[in-house]
Order: sequence, then C-alpha cells, then structure tokens
Amino acid sequence: MTDFLNECQGGVTAAQGFQAGGVYCGIRKAKKDIALISSQAPAVTAAVFTLNKTQAAPILVDKKQLAQSQLCSAIIVNSGNANACTGERGLQDAWTMIKTTAQALNVPEQQVLVASTGVIGQYLPIDKVIAGINDVATKLSKDGHQDAAEAIMTTDTFQKEVAVQYTSGTATITIGGMAKGSGMIAPNMATMLAFITTDAVIEHSALASALHTANSRSFNRLSVDGDTSTNDMAAIMANGLAQNKKITEGTEEYSKFVTALEYVLVKLAKMIARDGEGATKLIEVVVAGAHTEEEAVQAARAVANSNLVKTAMHGADANWGRILCAVGYSGIDFDPARVAISFNELPVLNPNYEIVLNEDEAKKILSQDHIIINVNLHQGSASACFYTCDLSKEYVHINASYRS
Amino acid sequence: MTDFLNECQGGVTAAQGFQAGGVYCGIRKAKKDIALISSQAPAVTAAVFTLNKTQAAPILVDKKQLAQSQLCSAIIVNSGNANACTGERGLQDAWTMIKTTAQALNVPEQQVLVASTGVIGQYLPIDKVIAGINDVATKLSKDGHQDAAEAIMTTDTFQKEVAVQYTSGTATITIGGMAKGSGMIAPNMATMLAFITTDAVIEHSALASALHTANSRSFNRLSVDGDTSTNDMAAIMANGLAQNKKITEGTEEYSKFVTALEYVLVKLAKMIARDGEGATKLIEVVVAGAHTEEEAVQAARAVANSNLVKTAMHGADANWGRILCAVGYSGIDFDPARVAISFNELPVLNPNYEIVLNEDEAKKILSQDHIIINVNLHQGSASACFYTCDLSKEYVHINASYRS
Repeated sequence: MTDFLNECQGGVTAAQGFQAGGVYCGIRKAKKDIALISSQAPAVTAAVFTLNKTQAAPILVDKKQLAQSQLCSAIIVNSGNANACTGERGLQDAWTMIKTTAQALNVPEQQVLVASTGVIGQYLPIDKVIAGINDVATKLSKDGHQDAAEAIMTTDTFQKEVAVQYTSGTATITIGGMAKGSGMIAPNMATMLAFITTDAVIEHSALASALHTANSRSFNRLSVDGDTSTNDMAAIMANGLAQNKKITEGTEEYSKFVTALEYVLVKLAKMIARDGEGATKLIEVVVAGAHTEEEAVQAARAVANSNLVKTAMHGADANWGRILCAVGYSGIDFDPARVAISFNELPVLNPNYEIVLNEDEAKKILSQDHIIINVNLHQGSASACFYTCDLSKEYVHINASYRS
Repeated sequence: MTDFLNECQGGVTAAQGFQAGGVYCGIRKAKKDIALISSQAPAVTAAVFTLNKTQAAPILVDKKQLAQSQLCSAIIVNSGNANACTGERGLQDAWTMIKTTAQALNVPEQQVLVASTGVIGQYLPIDKVIAGINDVATKLSKDGHQDAAEAIMTTDTFQKEVAVQYTSGTATITIGGMAKGSGMIAPNMATMLAFITTDAVIEHSALASALHTANSRSFNRLSVDGDTSTNDMAAIMANGLAQNKKITEGTEEYSKFVTALEYVLVKLAKMIARDGEGATKLIEVVVAGAHTEEEAVQAARAVANSNLVKTAMHGADANWGRILCAVGYSGIDFDPARVAISFNELPVLNPNYEIVLNEDEAKKILSQDHIIINVNLHQGSASACFYTCDLSKEYVHINASYRS
C-alpha cells in the first residue's frame, strides 16, 4: 500500500524550496532553542491544535493567523519555555516573535506561525528570543533541517525527522517533516509539535482534510503519559514547487497524498513514542476484531495508557491480565471470554480463557525494544493501532524535578 | 458536621455481634492470605462492584448471591490470587469457597459472600484454600479484626481499619470496616476491597442507598494509578444488634448514618491513597468554584490521575502549570484565566495568571507527607475532593515484576 513511496533524506527541508535553521539564544541552559522553517514561496498551510482548554499563547495567536491567511512562509519555534499560562504578556511575546520573524525574512506578518514548548507559567526572555530570531534568519539553509530538529527538542534524546518522495504524473512530490515530544504526550491532540513541508500543488481544503485524516491515525493514537499538552500543534506547508497537477479531494492523487502523509506522521509518532521520557521500548497496541474502528481505538488507548501495562512491559513481565483488565474498563462493550492476546507472534491467551503462555518465550519477546501487543476481541472486523512506550523509573526521575 | 461521631477501636469487629479472623493457607509465599468475617445474626447486606467489563469470578458469584438474598452471615476473602479471567473453573472455585464457608460456620450457602484480590489469570490452589477456610473458621474472635485486615493485604504496607460510634435515641450504633488496595486503584469503581460492618437496624433499601452515596464520595474519588480493577467490591453488613429504631430513608437518623458511613469510607479511602504502591505522600485535590459537583469531580480526577502532577509532587516541585494543564484536558468548560491554585494555604497562582509562587515556601509544603492541592475555578459554588498519592520510582519497581 505504500509501495509507491521512497524514503529520502532531508527532513523538514527535503521538499523543494524549503530552508531551515536552529540556533542557541539563551532560553535553555546549553542547547539550541530557536528553530526557523522558511519557504521561498508562500505555502498553502493547514494545522491542527491541542484540544486542551488551557491553550498556550502561540496556539491562540496561530489560530488568528490561519483565520486570516491560508498562506504561510515561515514558522518560528522556541524550546525551553511553553509561553503557556502567561496571560496578556504571553500573547504580546508571541506576536513579537511573529513580527520579528516577518521583518527578518521580509515576508508579510500574516504569513508567519509561531510555536513554543517547554515549561508552563514562565515568561519568555523576549530580548534573547528576538536576538535568536535575527540570528537564525541569517543561518537558513537546505542542510539546516538537523539543527532545526535539534532546536525544538526538550527532554527528547534524538532528532525526529522523516521524508518521502513519490511520482505524481511527471512530477515528483516530496513530503518531509520533523517533530518533538517526549513528555505530556497524549491522545486527542494535534501532537506535541510537528512541522511538515511539501512541494505538492494542493488545494487548501484537500490539504486540511489530508492532515486531519493522517493526524487521526498517527499523533492522535500516541500516548506517553496520557497528559494532553497546552501547546500541541501539527502544521503542514505546501509551497507547490513540485508543479504537479493540483491535488483535489476525492481523486486518486489525493489518496496517494494522504497515504504518503500518513506514512510520515506515523513514522514521527513512533519516534516520539520510542523517545518517550524514560522509555526503553516502543510499544504498539493493536486491537482487532472490534465492531468499529472507534471502539478498537478506545480499547487500544486504555491499554496504552495503563501504568500497570506499561510497567509490566518495562519489566518484560507477561502480565496479560492487566491488558484484559484495561480493555475491561475502556468503556467498550465486549465479551472477555472471546478475547485472544499475543505478544508479537506469540499467543498467550486464547478465547475461553485458555492460557497458552510460555513464560520463557514471552520473556524473550518482551525484552526486545519493540513490542507489539495484539488483542483480538473476536466480535467484528475493525482494527486500530495505538503507539506508546514503557514506564520506567527514569520517567519519574525526569518529571520529579523537570523545572530544576 | 461529624461532631456527633466518636472514633473507636475494633475495625471490622467493632460493631456488636461481629467476629473475624485471618490465617495463612499457602496462596502467598509467607503472609496471611485468608480472611473471614462473621455475624452472629444474619445481616442485611448491600454491596457495590467494579464497573470493569472484565469481572472476576467472585464478583459474578456475589451478584447472584445478593440477587437471591438480602441477608448475609459471612464474607470469605483470599489475597494473592484474584480468581479473575479464570473462566468456568474460576466460578466453580468461587462457589466452593462459599460452600466450604457455609458448612464450616453452619449458615445457609446463600448467606455467604466471597472476594479475591491478587494476580489475574491464575487458578486458585483450591485444596489449600479449603483447608484455610476450615482453619480460619475455628479462629474467629472479636480480636481477629487485625488478622483479617492483614490477610486481605497484597502490596499494602499497613492494615486499613477504622470504626466510629454515635448515639441514636437510646441506642449506640457502631460502624467499622477494613479495606485493602494499593495498586490497580482508580475512580468509577466500588473500591479494591472494603468490608464494613454495623449493628444498626436499617432497612435494606436505606442501607443500599447509604452505601451508594458514601461510596460515591470516597472510593469513587480515589485513584492510585487510574486502573480500575476486575475485583473491586465494597460490602456493608448490618446485623441490627444495636436495637435502635429502624433507620429508613429521608429521616434525620438516615442522614446521620450516611454521614457516619461516609466518614468511615473516606478515612479508608485516604488510607488506601497514602498506601498507594510506592507512594510517599497522600494528596488531596480539592476543586472549588465549579458549576456542579460533577464538574468539580471531573477536574479533580484529571489532576489526580496526571502522572506529571504526581511525579512533580513526588519531587516537591511546585509545577502548578501541570495542574492547570490537567484541568484543561479534563473535559469541563472553564476559563483558565480565572483559576487560582494553592498548595495547602499557600497561594501560587491568582486569577489573570498572576503568579505568586514562593519557591522556598512551596518546597516546604510539598516536602510534607500530606499535600492539599486547591484549585478554584471561580465560576460557580460547587466543590469536590479527590484522593491520590505521588508517583515514585518504587511504583515502577513494584509493578515491573509484580508476578515474580
């Protein structure tokens, strides 16, 4: 289904006409903290935002920006400070970031978006941020994608980038992106932060639909700790430089674009799960045999959010009872006696509570750094996958003194 | 409001006519694992059970028992094995426990309830359990309440008992109880296990209503890790030996009984939170200024279930942003700019995002073993309290290898 795609290098600058950069301006103690993405041509842009009622200043500002203009030329991002719960002054700071970026790049103010991630409830050191924006604007390049991906990291331990290419008629379309996120990661959000670029020519409504669809199957099926952030946002910019025939909804080319975009977002979502705070393993929870995809997601989310399941996976303990327990309180209607559970390909529970667990084999599988928990409800034909990680002492260590 | 109450000794045997005992039968490695509570007269009995769709055998059996008889003479409980996800054989084992108890005590089978707690998905060593029941039946006494409270413990570190007395006319009514529970503790349940006894004369419908009301304000507002167990159950037996005027709903005596029962359940709930797996602190989340009590509970539950809030409390880190974030994704409608937050009596956030946090003072308060997080939404007059604990590395340690 994704045979037509080829992965390529370049992350958020892989598509034609995009540049990026990342610099240190002094918000963090000693790592890059300002990232800038720029398109040489104004790009049709769509975004999804956190559903948290407590929304950070950049979220509020970006919603106003996108209500005014469907075109975007640049996105400015800082790490180390979320600019959330900062009231009127926080809003002013977010607008200052936009204005400074617009001036530095000589683009209209309404074509700039802003994003922040880090500690909640502290004001930005805005003078440092202004200096950082003016600095990074002079350092934009095609090679800057790694610096940008690094500059948006908080407790992340590695950069999260991916890009793919495919052919559309005689044109080659590239979609690339980067993301960050390691704590305060939960379903029903846009994501922590994800920025996607493409050179595809695509209608704005088709771009927004594609992002919505791909997001619902990737970042909205991702959880590190069940906490939906105040700053979640995923944005996609399409600058049209690939000169393909314009993509509109309901066409075969639209389906290909959605598939390619979903591939990129799922890959980034898995990277975020694998790099969850304190995580040692990527865990995929696959619920099959459900009445509907929604019910499959609901059950998979409950398993993925269970501290008891996540600690058992951390300890390579084949405690399948906790999995069946989590499905039990997920809120879906099902018959526990029909359920089958396996770890990767190894069955541990067959229907009618037939326990076929081989502890030694299970221990081997659960000691790997990528575990697939398969739950078959045996009552329908719908399925869904959810991404999470294990829960370790290191998660507690990181979060017991995050602000220090 | 609780001035008419006096705490007294005796836990689950404090009320007239109740005896209890606890022995070791070999389910656990080396601690008491069988508890028995017995009433000398058949007691009017009500119970609430887990809402988990995956229900353990004793839960299914007890529902049948209570549908047949409102009277109960004994409750038999084992720890070390949940008898959950054990299919037909599990049901047979639960019935065997009931029959063995009825024979040993010479009471009708339909007057016995059964409860289990421990590992899911393993069969009971039923021969050992039968021997244990016959053993404990010979050791019932007024002093046996501590042994019983010990025998129902799993990862609990201390026994959880409480009893109160008050005057009703010329009679003295006593309500006492015990509980266990330290992991797989979450809202929307009955509780892990709680057994309450009273000598009050009370109508069955009034007893059931009183339990429902008191439970909704205690065990259903308790969370250690957000996981609702397959075995949750709270039962109350009222044997009528206090010879008070029969309590019926809608009377002043009914209100007093509910207040006394709520006092007992809240105290047990707090003990469970304080003894949460790996916990070092009891945390009370009080949400005030809500439109409705339901919304207050919903917001308080989100804060209490947030791993990020719980790890911050563990580290004595005054990270109030995570609290406002959790209220934000709780699903209630509110204006973040109106919110005030304090720790115990120390304000940290005033409305309009006025940050008044004194880090040194906050550190002192958050280093204590009992923390009250106060959140005022400033939009209504309803409030609610929710009970939880901090999240420590020890929780991960305990649960990464629970079955070993």
